[in-house]
Amino acid sequence: MKNSKPRRRLRLTLSFDGEPYCGFQSQPNGPTVQAALEKALAQVTQQKAVVVGCSRTDAGVHARVYIAHTDTLSTLPVERLRAALNSLLPATIAVHDVADVKPRFHAQRSVKRKTYRYVILNAPVRDPLSRGRAWHLYENLNVGAMRAAGRALQGTHDFSCFQASDPLPRPARRKLLRCAVSARQLPPPMQGREITIDVEAPGFLKYMVRNIVGTLVEVGRGKRARNSMAKLLRSKDRKLAGPTAPAHGLTLHDLRY
Amino acid sequence: MKNSKPRRRLRLTLSFDGEPYCGFQSQPNGPTVQAALEKALAQVTQQKAVVVGCSRTDAGVHARVYIAHTDTLSTLPVERLRAALNSLLPATIAVHDVADVKPRFHAQRSVKRKTYRYVILNAPVRDPLSRGRAWHLYENLNVGAMRAAGRALQGTHDFSCFQASDPLPRPARRKLLRCAVSARQLPPPMQGREITIDVEAPGFLKYMVRNIVGTLVEVGRGKRARNSMAKLLRSKDRKLAGPTAPAHGLTLHDLRY
Repeated sequence: MKNSKPRRRLRLTLSFDGEPYCGFQSQPNGPTVQAALEKALAQVTQQKAVVVGCSRTDAGVHARVYIAHTDTLSTLPVERLRAALNSLLPATIAVHDVADVKPRFHAQRSVKRKTYRYVILNAPVRDPLSRGRAWHLYENLNVGAMRAAGRALQGTHDFSCFQASDPLPRPARRKLLRCAVSARQLPPPMQGREITIDVEAPGFLKYMVRNIVGTLVEVGRGKRARNSMAKLLRSKDRKLAGPTAPAHGLTLHDLRY
Repeated sequence: MKNSKPRRRLRLTLSFDGEPYCGFQSQPNGPTVQAALEKALAQVTQQKAVVVGCSRTDAGVHARVYIAHTDTLSTLPVERLRAALNSLLPATIAVHDVADVKPRFHAQRSVKRKTYRYVILNAPVRDPLSRGRAWHLYENLNVGAMRAAGRALQGTHDFSCFQASDPLPRPARRKLLRCAVSARQLPPPMQGREITIDVEAPGFLKYMVRNIVGTLVEVGRGKRARNSMAKLLRSKDRKLAGPTAPAHGLTLHDLRY
């Protein structure tokens, strides 16, 4: 039997609330964004669907923007696909755009730069309305010191000290384009500040952003010198860096292809 | 037995995520912010506690700022009270400040002005990260028309047409200090706008803000003329106004005493 329908490659532009998911990529331990997408695509197209994402994201990490691709024989127009997917997917996932792309487009391999944003609520009291989106830290952090340390991480380095403590043996050389720490005073009745850490690179090691954040927080607490980053990088020793910051403060913020 | 401890009046400055609550004020049908506060206060002070809030809020309505008062014989310092309450209350409620105030201070009667903020996500696709904080409307709204209609509601009027459809017989004359409609374009990948409606007054009727929002949305949809507000107010007829907007888009935003 001959199937004359041409295979299309579709690019899906998504956002999701990571809280209920064990990350993007399918795995046996719990719900994933990929599994939800593949199920919805299969329902819409009546074909088995495989989705490739721009990034594994850790369990609980959010995405303001996330790009994935999938191949399909479906002839449905992209607007219909978008509407159908949004009606089938849970409210924690949105499909902003579905587009036909060239077969050489690859959500993971074609990405040029990713920006992750980490938000810290540095305040004496929690904020019920930013719950699940920011890491709440009571102790007053020195933002100037964090900013200096963040800047020292920019550039091409071996980031072994910031990778997951059970790493697969893989090259850890990465080019960190930006590690920018900023703060804004919160309006009353909130006291304290919201600290934002933007980290931009063509690619990241597993847990790298959260380990950088955990280390910068130690700098902010005065437990680690602001000028200690070069030595830490040279050590290539995960045990010498700070703890992994919690996932719920992290959002995949921007992507460049 | 003589109790020589003086009675103190405490002002509590709170915020809360309204989603899990049947409003602020205690009632038999489900959890309320008042009940959670009274339980936590009783645990901290070892005395029965009664809390008076600045406003009944509808089930599901949020508060960026909310003021309540309570009387206590406890001699605990305010900082200790704040810390203890925050450790006992659920993450959906925060106590930003506890202060000793004069006995004539009354959370509800002393309030001079309240500002409610209603947020509409006017976009073709939902936003998982503003879920539970904004009313999602697909159809493109005419913000200019909504702004003109909102402005026409400002001033002192009989707001009977905007009160709950099962009102207790009570005077409906209110002074609306501000009804301001604004919009900002959402950054990609979101398409569309976030429309914000700020409504400020010394006091409101039950469902008044949500009924105003439901009516302004009909103006934005072109189902109702932008210059029809004066006639609607004169009608004093709830049936002639628009539907009640959903609670989850509404936040008590500011208070003046």
